[in-house]
Amino acid sequence: MAPKLYGNVFSTATLRAVATFHEKCVEFEFVPINFGTGEHKKEPFLSLNPFGQVPAYVDGDLKLFESRAITKHIAFEHQGKGTELLYLDLKKMAPVAVWMEVEAHQYDPVASKLVFEQAVKPLMLKMEPDSAVVEEHQKKLGQVLDVYEARLSKSKYLGGDEFTLADLHHLPTLQYLKGTSTIEVFEARPHVSAWVKDILARPSWIKAVELQKQA
Amino acid sequence: MAPKLYGNVFSTATLRAVATFHEKCVEFEFVPINFGTGEHKKEPFLSLNPFGQVPAYVDGDLKLFESRAITKHIAFEHQGKGTELLYLDLKKMAPVAVWMEVEAHQYDPVASKLVFEQAVKPLMLKMEPDSAVVEEHQKKLGQVLDVYEARLSKSKYLGGDEFTLADLHHLPTLQYLKGTSTIEVFEARPHVSAWVKDILARPSWIKAVELQKQA
Repeated sequence: MAPKLYGNVFSTATLRAVATFHEKCVEFEFVPINFGTGEHKKEPFLSLNPFGQVPAYVDGDLKLFESRAITKHIAFEHQGKGTELLYLDLKKMAPVAVWMEVEAHQYDPVASKLVFEQAVKPLMLKMEPDSAVVEEHQKKLGQVLDVYEARLSKSKYLGGDEFTLADLHHLPTLQYLKGTSTIEVFEARPHVSAWVKDILARPSWIKAVELQKQA
Repeated sequence: MAPKLYGNVFSTATLRAVATFHEKCVEFEFVPINFGTGEHKKEPFLSLNPFGQVPAYVDGDLKLFESRAITKHIAFEHQGKGTELLYLDLKKMAPVAVWMEVEAHQYDPVASKLVFEQAVKPLMLKMEPDSAVVEEHQKKLGQVLDVYEARLSKSKYLGGDEFTLADLHHLPTLQYLKGTSTIEVFEARPHVSAWVKDILARPSWIKAVELQKQA
């Protein structure tokens, strides 16, 4: 039986896991969770993730939550199939691990705040973005992306010369931000800009986003 | 040659790496970085971590930053030595990976804010904590720890029946919070309280904290 992914197609964390399945060429069953009825905050979903957040992953008796733990599990479980998103070789894995932590701790808190202001508020909550918050976080993002620019001038991808989870984890926020003024912060840095275009064009990602059209 | 750890003994991220070395019984050279002179924001340190944060790790030509990438590297590099902090077996590793992400995304943002308000401000910056911020974050921490309480009523440690990095990563914030009113939020939950006492008493942790006395 194919593993099940419980999630919402508009959730960045859900799409992170969906893209990983596609990169690894692994079949899965998508189980939509309805945010409108608060399905993620009630049983039976809370038994899958006690924090009430999507996605959750179920494969037989193995139940996982937290998107980055799910992507790592899929990548390691299907070594040798699809794209090698993580490495068993420790020296090759070390920079990938560093840049996965950079995504989680330096990039994502700033990018997620911008997604909330510039995409979630206008598109889903029918609210205006707070321009002071946007400006402050675009400035912070610029400082983070200065470091990315230096890194990407030395290697094609964040973890080295190959696309890995360190890149993939950025895709869902990039997808939302590319339709906002924040994309200029990326485009102002040539290596970052080329990297954004390259990873957003991956077939796995295009396929992941198509899931939104069915919603 | 022993690996070098560049850090500051009052930094929670630095102590996370130090404790990992001790758990794995791995010798290392500690290179203190002086926050007072802004050493972490200047070269040559910026060549080790372009984000200007401690710790950084150097072993021959391998240079790493981000504390959780460093701890993972040490744990996997020294498989079979000291405590098994991570597993190569995927099924055994999966819950450890989940709870490492929980620490990073659910616990740490709240706990670090409380450390800043209740320890860094009064002890290092000679400032008063903001009581509204403390109250708000203690409430959030309580919600996170409700989930920990349920988990720790079923397994002795977060990742399963053995101590792993999923537990260890909490130690530096616990160390600071145990001297503040926030410890009551932990102590109000019996399984969480027992877990806190247990992990803070580990010889590796006591040895890590001793480094502060030499500063």
